[in-house]
Amino acid sequence: MSHEQGSGPVTEDLAAFIAGSRREDVPDDVRHEARRSLVNFFACALGGCRDAFVNSATHVLTCFGSAGTATVIGRRQSADVLTAAFLNAASANVFDFDDTHPRTIIHPTAPVAAALLAFAESSPLSGRDLLHALVLGMEAECRIGNAVSPEHYRRGWHITSTCGVFGAAVAVSKAIGLPRERIVWALGNASAQAGGLLETLGSMAKSVSVGNAARNGVVAALLAQAGVFGPQRPLEGTYGFLRVFGPEPDAGRVTEGLGHTWEAALNTYKPYPCGIVLSPVLDACLALRSAHQLDADRIARVEITAHPLLRERTDRVHPVSGREAQVSAQHAVAVALTRGKAGLAEFSDACANDAGLRALREGVAFVEDPQRPVESATLTVRLRDGATLEHRVDEPRGSTARPLTDADLESKLRDLVEYGGSQCDAARLAHAIWHIEDADDAAGVVRLAAG
Amino acid sequence: MSHEQGSGPVTEDLAAFIAGSRREDVPDDVRHEARRSLVNFFACALGGCRDAFVNSATHVLTCFGSAGTATVIGRRQSADVLTAAFLNAASANVFDFDDTHPRTIIHPTAPVAAALLAFAESSPLSGRDLLHALVLGMEAECRIGNAVSPEHYRRGWHITSTCGVFGAAVAVSKAIGLPRERIVWALGNASAQAGGLLETLGSMAKSVSVGNAARNGVVAALLAQAGVFGPQRPLEGTYGFLRVFGPEPDAGRVTEGLGHTWEAALNTYKPYPCGIVLSPVLDACLALRSAHQLDADRIARVEITAHPLLRERTDRVHPVSGREAQVSAQHAVAVALTRGKAGLAEFSDACANDAGLRALREGVAFVEDPQRPVESATLTVRLRDGATLEHRVDEPRGSTARPLTDADLESKLRDLVEYGGSQCDAARLAHAIWHIEDADDAAGVVRLAAG
Repeated sequence: MSHEQGSGPVTEDLAAFIAGSRREDVPDDVRHEARRSLVNFFACALGGCRDAFVNSATHVLTCFGSAGTATVIGRRQSADVLTAAFLNAASANVFDFDDTHPRTIIHPTAPVAAALLAFAESSPLSGRDLLHALVLGMEAECRIGNAVSPEHYRRGWHITSTCGVFGAAVAVSKAIGLPRERIVWALGNASAQAGGLLETLGSMAKSVSVGNAARNGVVAALLAQAGVFGPQRPLEGTYGFLRVFGPEPDAGRVTEGLGHTWEAALNTYKPYPCGIVLSPVLDACLALRSAHQLDADRIARVEITAHPLLRERTDRVHPVSGREAQVSAQHAVAVALTRGKAGLAEFSDACANDAGLRALREGVAFVEDPQRPVESATLTVRLRDGATLEHRVDEPRGSTARPLTDADLESKLRDLVEYGGSQCDAARLAHAIWHIEDADDAAGVVRLAAG
Repeated sequence: MSHEQGSGPVTEDLAAFIAGSRREDVPDDVRHEARRSLVNFFACALGGCRDAFVNSATHVLTCFGSAGTATVIGRRQSADVLTAAFLNAASANVFDFDDTHPRTIIHPTAPVAAALLAFAESSPLSGRDLLHALVLGMEAECRIGNAVSPEHYRRGWHITSTCGVFGAAVAVSKAIGLPRERIVWALGNASAQAGGLLETLGSMAKSVSVGNAARNGVVAALLAQAGVFGPQRPLEGTYGFLRVFGPEPDAGRVTEGLGHTWEAALNTYKPYPCGIVLSPVLDACLALRSAHQLDADRIARVEITAHPLLRERTDRVHPVSGREAQVSAQHAVAVALTRGKAGLAEFSDACANDAGLRALREGVAFVEDPQRPVESATLTVRLRDGATLEHRVDEPRGSTARPLTDADLESKLRDLVEYGGSQCDAARLAHAIWHIEDADDAAGVVRLAAG
């Protein structure tokens, strides 16, 4: 079915790169970004581990799995490797609080790390090899995403799932040590399993495709190891992933600059569990509250001056669910000024329905400024005593220009461990992740995150 | 994410139909066609059960499953329900010898029957209810296929897999007895898992997506039962299955005439394990050989008069693999005239490389006749003694106009049981399928097909 199509043998070149990559070929900063991605991954998974979807899926899927050999993050019960990969990816992504590759808006770590960590509990894998495989999996995933962006997402594909399965397959293939030819097969087996629709966002079904991306990536690699071959050009073939899911792909972006530029190093992390456009608003709220010991009772009204996109996306005066609260500027302002926090608890169903926030939400107004970049916002707080406080943010926390620090990520981990209620030792886990390349057995790290 | 789009609430109407359907609403002929589909399903699965893909996938997937509670057709080892669903669907489809819904070219039974039969081994289900659920699953699958055809396949989707997951989800939802609302959820959970690419045809990776269609359909229904909800319009929503996979869907075809016209009754069955365009050629070969006790040594040359499409698709004088042999007219003619048979053994790798067929293959010529319908072919055999034999076929066996008889299907079952080597009792199995509506426990039927 596959034919030459102008671009080079993209799948084969990618597979050759993966097979040939040595740990020392990966620059230090890229490896450090991968460690940061892992800290953020565990934070999100430990925060999401008792979400209703994860509870239901654990109940259903563990009925069919073998006796647990792999950790389900944040939970007492362990599971078989495939089910653990599914559940851990779903937990890490369930609140959309995980990482973002800005060019594609893939959440890259959840499918890849979940696949690798579960695999590491069934087959010996050093921390160095795990981190190396993680980098390569994320690299493949984001590059395949680049080749189909932006049309792929715009048409309705949930890109984290559709590309995540390739990342997971590549990572596990590298962890196994598959040769080039079998990595092509693994990519073919992954292509047969790519799926996930934007229509499911906002429903639990979203997590089904994210969990599958991790699980099916493991299956794709293990089948390739067992001799299951795919087509020669699962990516660039006439009826391969890029053209069918593209639909106007730039196949060359999969391999362009491979080994020289690193997409995996471009990862970003969210400081707040809500729409990314709200980041500058929340930064400003928390800064003003902290600087002026603001008490919500003193506030008469609030103006947000920002690009019109902010109003378009987040004008929801009284959200009734956590999901709606995550895209409500009025809620974000009211809760951050009132509580001085903007974590998962502040964007929960319960908090969305907190009557104490109603008055302040109603006092929030948008001032549109089409000249502003979308990352910028100014918060103007008018106090009952006539005073006015103002704070402008041009580079919000968590953006590429102002990334979360390592300490921020550790703090996110602590907060989310507490939110998730697993009683895992966040400090010990963080230490293990920062030093994962010293670990003889990578599985030891994920076991620290058991519930 | 989903919005009104002109067409009615397709998913909801479909779910309401499924939830409300009573067994007695399904006409006798439709139920009989479902029994015929099951005979053909078991035949193909018993023929494919020891294929290399099935061997490898069994090896990989049973490592992670719980102790076997569900039959893997034709094999000694049992498996967990999800793995059994995967393996049985893969076996039934691996040789593309299974059924065809002509409008969509979906192979409809493999994903749906495999899902239901595995489910029936974990949860009590009568034969009547299984057959009813099978009809409804196939009906949903083929109707969703109608709504996206022909563009969906043309763009590169493997429609058996992409639509099969919906069929499996619907069938298991009905078997569980889910109410309308949860069938909508099951369809949403299925939409998150739809996938499968034409690029993988001709490779083992094809079977990954077919197996997943069955497995993931079971998961979709069980998750819905456990409270995992999807979007309200997973089919017709803006970013739902029909538009994203369409890409020019006719959503109304999902529900048009539901309960009055039955797509499930339009199923057809292949008499030969090769490209469907070769059916009239093989019919003619077998008829001539049998009528004239033809010995291959007496044949000088052979002409096939047919629509030019036949030559386009099947002009391969010396195929080197079973897969190539399946689309080689020269091979088909040579092997059928020489052996008087055209079963899986005649389209195997070994047979493709049988040197004894070379001379006769080289004596086969195409005569193009653009006036002919594609279903028609005339075979002209020129003997060494100067005589000429001719046979014309206008309605090949297995076509809608000349369907395989019940006896033909039983004979296919016998042949494929023998080919697969499972030593299952074909006569007993056939009897159980024809009388499945009398069975209190449908699982008893699939257990007759254990290896």
